[in-house]
Amino acid sequence: MPAPLAVTMGEPAGIGPDLLLGLYAQREERGLSPFVVFGHADFLRARAARLGLDLLIEEATPASAGAVFARALPVVSLAGTVEDTPGRPDEQAAPVVIGAIAQAVEATLAGHCRAVVTAPIHKGALYAAGFRHPGHTEFLADLCALDGVVPLPVMMLAHEDLRTVPLTIHVPISDVPRLVTGDLIVDTLRVMARDLVGRFGIASPRIAVAGLNPHAGEGGSIGREDMDIIAPAIGAARAEGIDAVGPLPGDTLFYPPHWRQYDAVLAMYHDQALIPIKTVAFDAGVNVTLGLPIVRISPDHGTAFDLAGTGRASSSSFAAALAMADQMTGRKS
Amino acid sequence: MPAPLAVTMGEPAGIGPDLLLGLYAQREERGLSPFVVFGHADFLRARAARLGLDLLIEEATPASAGAVFARALPVVSLAGTVEDTPGRPDEQAAPVVIGAIAQAVEATLAGHCRAVVTAPIHKGALYAAGFRHPGHTEFLADLCALDGVVPLPVMMLAHEDLRTVPLTIHVPISDVPRLVTGDLIVDTLRVMARDLVGRFGIASPRIAVAGLNPHAGEGGSIGREDMDIIAPAIGAARAEGIDAVGPLPGDTLFYPPHWRQYDAVLAMYHDQALIPIKTVAFDAGVNVTLGLPIVRISPDHGTAFDLAGTGRASSSSFAAALAMADQMTGRKS
Repeated sequence: MPAPLAVTMGEPAGIGPDLLLGLYAQREERGLSPFVVFGHADFLRARAARLGLDLLIEEATPASAGAVFARALPVVSLAGTVEDTPGRPDEQAAPVVIGAIAQAVEATLAGHCRAVVTAPIHKGALYAAGFRHPGHTEFLADLCALDGVVPLPVMMLAHEDLRTVPLTIHVPISDVPRLVTGDLIVDTLRVMARDLVGRFGIASPRIAVAGLNPHAGEGGSIGREDMDIIAPAIGAARAEGIDAVGPLPGDTLFYPPHWRQYDAVLAMYHDQALIPIKTVAFDAGVNVTLGLPIVRISPDHGTAFDLAGTGRASSSSFAAALAMADQMTGRKS
Repeated sequence: MPAPLAVTMGEPAGIGPDLLLGLYAQREERGLSPFVVFGHADFLRARAARLGLDLLIEEATPASAGAVFARALPVVSLAGTVEDTPGRPDEQAAPVVIGAIAQAVEATLAGHCRAVVTAPIHKGALYAAGFRHPGHTEFLADLCALDGVVPLPVMMLAHEDLRTVPLTIHVPISDVPRLVTGDLIVDTLRVMARDLVGRFGIASPRIAVAGLNPHAGEGGSIGREDMDIIAPAIGAARAEGIDAVGPLPGDTLFYPPHWRQYDAVLAMYHDQALIPIKTVAFDAGVNVTLGLPIVRISPDHGTAFDLAGTGRASSSSFAAALAMADQMTGRKS
């Protein structure tokens, strides 16, 4: 039996638990392959009852999960207290939330699980328990460190054949020009090129690089970064055999017949990468972390406290994350 | 007979002439309402022959154009030399290109034409003839000055019910934060609110304002401009009765169920406004200039020198521009 997917429970006060429970309840119609949840079994039973979901939850291990999955949701249950308080995050749950992520990564690094799908966390609730990472992804990268070397995690938004990577992420627009460096561009292109082959099975990936300025700077008349920084970095990547093209004007690049000529787009900043995905993918885009020794996917939404416990949150992105994890680990095409 | 649309010929070495000739040739299938071209009749005859289009071209006035349109393309022909050299702009033609725009605006201001649809120009070829404006739109605004007061032209990209306005346009990203001022936001919202009523017939327009920073600054943790500048400007506009909402995160705002709640979106910079339009509109978006005393539309593409004279340029956006001009002047719904 193939190894299951590892799904982390995420923030208990958010919609993550609702979605994984709801998807499990539909495992047959949806043809889901087995997954094991890293979290807290009693909390999940309480949330399932609140949602009116008639399902069994059973403590399990990655090794037993495949056999359990048909009759009950397999859970690697961590010791600790997790109350069912939708919309109201509770610092008490932090050790379980953090531990679930750490154990899911460990099980996947060890080959007991195929990939990690992470439900959204709420950083504010984790600080009291010693969480010191700028975000979820950086924590994952730290957990994957080998001999003290932390890999460069690269965030990719994906929906069907549109894949975009923001070079800079959660930084003010005024900081973006300073953060767009040749080194970061080359390092990011290396990770993209390697993982498009290794994770997506694309033999000769072509990568489009978006310009920073309107019209990619129009030959220097609208800012010089495109000529002075981005173009030379693309040249350096090409010299290493990476098929990167650009800088291309950010707007016309996202005209669908243009981006379809490429396997992925490297954008320079958050909205430049996320707007096209939100526009075409509605709520079914997913967030893939490249650059790690494991496959990690997350749905492209947050904790949505106002919807937690109501059963009204859309599971499209979470379902797409499970499907992408299968696809990237060779379970389905 | 209603007044015709005024269509300017634009750069003779570009695709503008190809598209207006091609559309005229299909006037019956497409049900086009009459338009009159401001340009150069002999040049247009040469280009039509090059494209293998079997059509008549007749010198006309706005007043006679309606009657001429069924049998021949009516042209207000300016004196000057315009050679048919696709892909190779010639400064010699500049006085005709510039004069055509000026006469089209004049005829429309006088009520002899209903609206102006402008084909793309190539500024480089116009400088020798004294063109000193930063762009096409600023020239139009100057031509519309009343008592020396130049109106604030506001560029809107439109496709069906998605309408976006970039607050800043052809400036480097590093200049954007400084150019996002409260005054400019309020002035732009005033023009948008007034023209959504007056030009688009929307009784109570709702306008979404995108944030500058990722997640609209996330309460100040990703840049302060959203809190310190954009939010107060929206408050000032609301105090004047303008139904503006925001700042909203630029990415999730363009998730279609979100933007569909609004009649238009004010974006903070070029790519933030243009990426969603290019993504959804393929090549059928148009550029509407708000804030002028006349209706002015242009196709959302440039001169495309490589395609000029080949007959291979897509007329989707030019056709959409003619349709939008009709719609905005009450000819069709």
